[in-house]
Amino acid sequence: MATDTAAPTPTGYVQPEIDVPALTALLDGRYAQVRDLVRANLTEYASILVDAEELSMSDFRERVKEVVVEMAATGQTGMGFPEEYGGGGDIGASVAAFETLAYGDLSVLVKVGVQFGLFGGAILQLGTKHHHDAYLADLITGKLMGCFAMTETGHGSNVQALGTVATYDAEAQEFVITTTTEEARKDYIGNAAEHAELAVVFAQLEVGPESGRASQGVHAFVVPIRVDGEPAPGVRIEDDGLKMGLNGVDNGRIWFDQVRVPRTALLNRFADVTAEGTYESPIENPNRRFFTMLGTLVQGRVCVGGGGINAAKVALAIATRYAVRRRQFEATSDEHEELLLDYGMHQRRLLPLIARTYALHFAQEVVAGQLHDVFSGTHAPGAEDDQARRELESRAAGTKALGTWHATRTIQECREACGGAGYLSVNRFAALKADSDIFTTFEGDNHVLLQLVAKGLLTDYASEFEDLDQLGMVRFVTGLAVETVIERTSVHKLLERVRDLLPSGDEWDQEAGLLDPDYQLAMLRFREEHMLAGVARRLKRGIDQDLNPGEVFSLVQDHVIAAAHAHVERLVLEAFVDKTRSLPDGDLKVALNLLCDLFALSTIEADRAWFMEHGRLTVPRSKAISREVSSLCRKIRPLAVPLVDAWAIPPEMLRSPDLVG
Amino acid sequence: MATDTAAPTPTGYVQPEIDVPALTALLDGRYAQVRDLVRANLTEYASILVDAEELSMSDFRERVKEVVVEMAATGQTGMGFPEEYGGGGDIGASVAAFETLAYGDLSVLVKVGVQFGLFGGAILQLGTKHHHDAYLADLITGKLMGCFAMTETGHGSNVQALGTVATYDAEAQEFVITTTTEEARKDYIGNAAEHAELAVVFAQLEVGPESGRASQGVHAFVVPIRVDGEPAPGVRIEDDGLKMGLNGVDNGRIWFDQVRVPRTALLNRFADVTAEGTYESPIENPNRRFFTMLGTLVQGRVCVGGGGINAAKVALAIATRYAVRRRQFEATSDEHEELLLDYGMHQRRLLPLIARTYALHFAQEVVAGQLHDVFSGTHAPGAEDDQARRELESRAAGTKALGTWHATRTIQECREACGGAGYLSVNRFAALKADSDIFTTFEGDNHVLLQLVAKGLLTDYASEFEDLDQLGMVRFVTGLAVETVIERTSVHKLLERVRDLLPSGDEWDQEAGLLDPDYQLAMLRFREEHMLAGVARRLKRGIDQDLNPGEVFSLVQDHVIAAAHAHVERLVLEAFVDKTRSLPDGDLKVALNLLCDLFALSTIEADRAWFMEHGRLTVPRSKAISREVSSLCRKIRPLAVPLVDAWAIPPEMLRSPDLVG
Repeated sequence: MATDTAAPTPTGYVQPEIDVPALTALLDGRYAQVRDLVRANLTEYASILVDAEELSMSDFRERVKEVVVEMAATGQTGMGFPEEYGGGGDIGASVAAFETLAYGDLSVLVKVGVQFGLFGGAILQLGTKHHHDAYLADLITGKLMGCFAMTETGHGSNVQALGTVATYDAEAQEFVITTTTEEARKDYIGNAAEHAELAVVFAQLEVGPESGRASQGVHAFVVPIRVDGEPAPGVRIEDDGLKMGLNGVDNGRIWFDQVRVPRTALLNRFADVTAEGTYESPIENPNRRFFTMLGTLVQGRVCVGGGGINAAKVALAIATRYAVRRRQFEATSDEHEELLLDYGMHQRRLLPLIARTYALHFAQEVVAGQLHDVFSGTHAPGAEDDQARRELESRAAGTKALGTWHATRTIQECREACGGAGYLSVNRFAALKADSDIFTTFEGDNHVLLQLVAKGLLTDYASEFEDLDQLGMVRFVTGLAVETVIERTSVHKLLERVRDLLPSGDEWDQEAGLLDPDYQLAMLRFREEHMLAGVARRLKRGIDQDLNPGEVFSLVQDHVIAAAHAHVERLVLEAFVDKTRSLPDGDLKVALNLLCDLFALSTIEADRAWFMEHGRLTVPRSKAISREVSSLCRKIRPLAVPLVDAWAIPPEMLRSPDLVG
Repeated sequence: MATDTAAPTPTGYVQPEIDVPALTALLDGRYAQVRDLVRANLTEYASILVDAEELSMSDFRERVKEVVVEMAATGQTGMGFPEEYGGGGDIGASVAAFETLAYGDLSVLVKVGVQFGLFGGAILQLGTKHHHDAYLADLITGKLMGCFAMTETGHGSNVQALGTVATYDAEAQEFVITTTTEEARKDYIGNAAEHAELAVVFAQLEVGPESGRASQGVHAFVVPIRVDGEPAPGVRIEDDGLKMGLNGVDNGRIWFDQVRVPRTALLNRFADVTAEGTYESPIENPNRRFFTMLGTLVQGRVCVGGGGINAAKVALAIATRYAVRRRQFEATSDEHEELLLDYGMHQRRLLPLIARTYALHFAQEVVAGQLHDVFSGTHAPGAEDDQARRELESRAAGTKALGTWHATRTIQECREACGGAGYLSVNRFAALKADSDIFTTFEGDNHVLLQLVAKGLLTDYASEFEDLDQLGMVRFVTGLAVETVIERTSVHKLLERVRDLLPSGDEWDQEAGLLDPDYQLAMLRFREEHMLAGVARRLKRGIDQDLNPGEVFSLVQDHVIAAAHAHVERLVLEAFVDKTRSLPDGDLKVALNLLCDLFALSTIEADRAWFMEHGRLTVPRSKAISREVSSLCRKIRPLAVPLVDAWAIPPEMLRSPDLVG
């Protein structure tokens, strides 16, 4: 494990050396070639980063569209579509391509996401051969631009409650699409303000004679919204105008006034309306049908999570390189000022973020792999497949939430760590910060996503409950014997496992074991299970006290979200530990083990109050963890630059001539 | 205390009602009239918020300059200058005016700060009658624009190390100003890129014959940098270009190539050079001289802290009003969706931030009052005055750090709490976030400022040590008997006091006392003193182990900063408690007591790990604090809108037609 040049310290610790290309290969994984294609395209179109600052909003939108179409021609953006329509037929490759694109301008990224992920994905996943034949080939090249009109001003995350209505007119064999109230206007729709010809519109489907019209819930329709560049008859479009960032994407609002589309405009993979106006679906339960449809769109969340993680890498690469160039104040000698990264505080600010970025990278690799497997049909169909889909949806939601929060936090910390220089646009943070800010909200608000994760955990993904909303969740959970939940979450077994790992039982006073991944994992598992059981108990208790279920939920909500967060963090650590364990002995393994320890212990440290409150950390051990985190930072300090170099971000994407130089 | 309409609950708690104008009057304090003038001016020039989005950078800079000059004509920006030059002669009023201006466009705020605070303040505080007569009248009207050229690319916070040199040429009776290296270029200088005619330049003064030239440390000089709009001979100016925000301020870089200015260009209040080239100063110690000069500029920090706090208010006012309009998901009934602010999580996100904003507001009132007193000469001169100045500097540094971090955090949380709508520029968060981001860095990087605070605490502001840098601080502290520091910080006495407050001694298991401000203050005092003593011990131990002082400092740095942070938080709580105690009985007092409790307990909750680790919180009591925080949130929920309305932010400054409506 030691290289010849490194001398062991008295404690036997040998500083590892990092083979950067080898680490890059490890990180890039099976899609190294795809990632390199995107890196080359990013470099080719590097001027877009300057365009973002210099062009008017209108010109920049056009330029972003051009770049997206030109990138599409290299095959980069169509990898997830079937080969027969000109796609690449590899879902994993399409995620890898998208993630890597996040090293560059994020308007380009989001425009790609809107066109190929949301719009193209909806046509592919919710439509049938008729729609595929009609649209896929042209949308893959970017010749046909479209938008994904789901969100409404009054209904962001609560899609089931949206207000747009599609009424079937059996006589004309047409659907009539109408925006019923001002709250029901479609809003923040990317590609809507200027470029989209088509919209996939989500609306409440109403079928039947006027006297007894029945609502069948939310369905998706293909609606032409623009003809020869002008809004189609009955369609009103308004520009959302200037945004905090992503101004290369033309977001807009759409109103529909009795807009008629043919019966075939219904994306009818999961439900259809016969010519006579009879509603048919192979999925009987309306909630399940709705969530099945939404579930096919999970790729967007996987992609946004990965995009956030890679945007964080750009910020860390700049701040880390700056920290080994910039000196500030005399500290160790009167002769010269100290490098920023030699300050303990600066190490504490940047290095745990690097560790968490690595952890999230490997967690993202897992969820992207699951996405590929589920959507490539390598799972057996049937119940097992259902279970795999639900787990994928939960993991995608959780990784998206943690990955995008991490991006927001990391970019901010890195800007501050670069001081005044970090404020100049040429140094990248301005765009990174403004463009990535909305990642925590779009493709599902992070708090709502974590509630979704919690719901899955509390109901154990029981298929009969997968479609519960908040109110339903409370009613369901409180209807169970709490013991069932606790039994299922196996808190007691875990407690024993944690104890077994620690030779001295409850006397956790020595530092031995802190660097044992089994100990670290047991801690995170214990927290998760304990929190889940606590949520179940509190829901139950609230109902027993005759409180309104909604009030109960409101009281317990932060606990619900904390439990989901704990669950996802455990998955992230597992992914990191699994990866390091799979490596052959050598410096790379040593280095990643240090990083994995830093991630695990800084995660426990951040929540050490909880662990103390729940008897899983003594005071001396809590303090020992803080010391160990600082010690790991010092060990990782010499590896910081190779660790960020291994992300292989094209230098043109870093800009920052005075910082990374 | 109870109004007639409010029915007491079974526990005797009566929901208070807030008289909004009365609360506004309380918050505005003695400068209500000044604040109202600024509010009127903000409304008058409200279109600047749109200009910020629509104009080119160059046009926007011109527009901001115009607005600043027109506001100057109302007397708003000159309140701190002597009346004989056209100023208002009231320092407290000038701070109040500046703070209130932060409700509007922050480029205008920062341009005002650069012109009247930094440039004007340096002329006023470092210059003498000659300079006052020459410049003050014209700079107060904005006819004469100037900049404050302190920061260099290679030296941000470490001003003493800057590289620009001013050499005295006795023959010509001139100073020769030179940028010695590329690192020594002046950078990020507001007003430099386009508008400033003059610069106050900070440079190392060198005096004496060429053979034996002596450096006298950093001094300030008035240097013409532009003549008829063109750079003066020997002066090179470069535009810093586009920034993350504040693009109405023309930041730039300046290089000096043997630029000659007359001997009278030295701002000579604290030191002078005779015609023959003899250096003279009433302050013998060069370090003390330097810090005395810098100390006169403390108003800038006081102003930026207040600006940050008021920017946070704008964000909270929008997010709070949105949260009582916007519904999301069915929760308490199947009939309608729930208001955001009725969710426990949403209360947890916004209400502690409102409480902290109130706390910081009152802390800011204290530091602004101290500033006024010290600079209005109401203190006795001499040693007492010195002590007051040092305490003011420390408090200004600390309040600036906490106030600006609070702004960054609050604006981000509020943006996220408004979801996608928060991302549209019309809804204010885009500008608020981008423009305020640099507040944590300029006028002193927050981490560096907290080190300054810690230094003052560790040395007890002993005048002979006030001028110690990091290295000096380590050497000084480790040269003391640790016992001296501990004795001084009186940890033991505090420990006893905390115990006395709790009837059951160390058995802190009941909730009694949680809402006692003396308990809350004792907790924060204990934390502060314990951390300080710990820092002293660790510094000492490091030196005893023969480590390099710089290494010791690096190891202890996060502890140093935590101690300073704890100190400032205690001062903030004291300010809030003092204010509430001064109020007559009534609903306002009840409401502010709730808010003060929420601030105190959410602050303790956030650091409850530390309190448990140091034996000041038992697990049951820690959990009780978390429950109490949630309970306080529910009590404050009905008061949220009046609490933000009382800030009396002009509606035009909120914009956000769809959010606050």
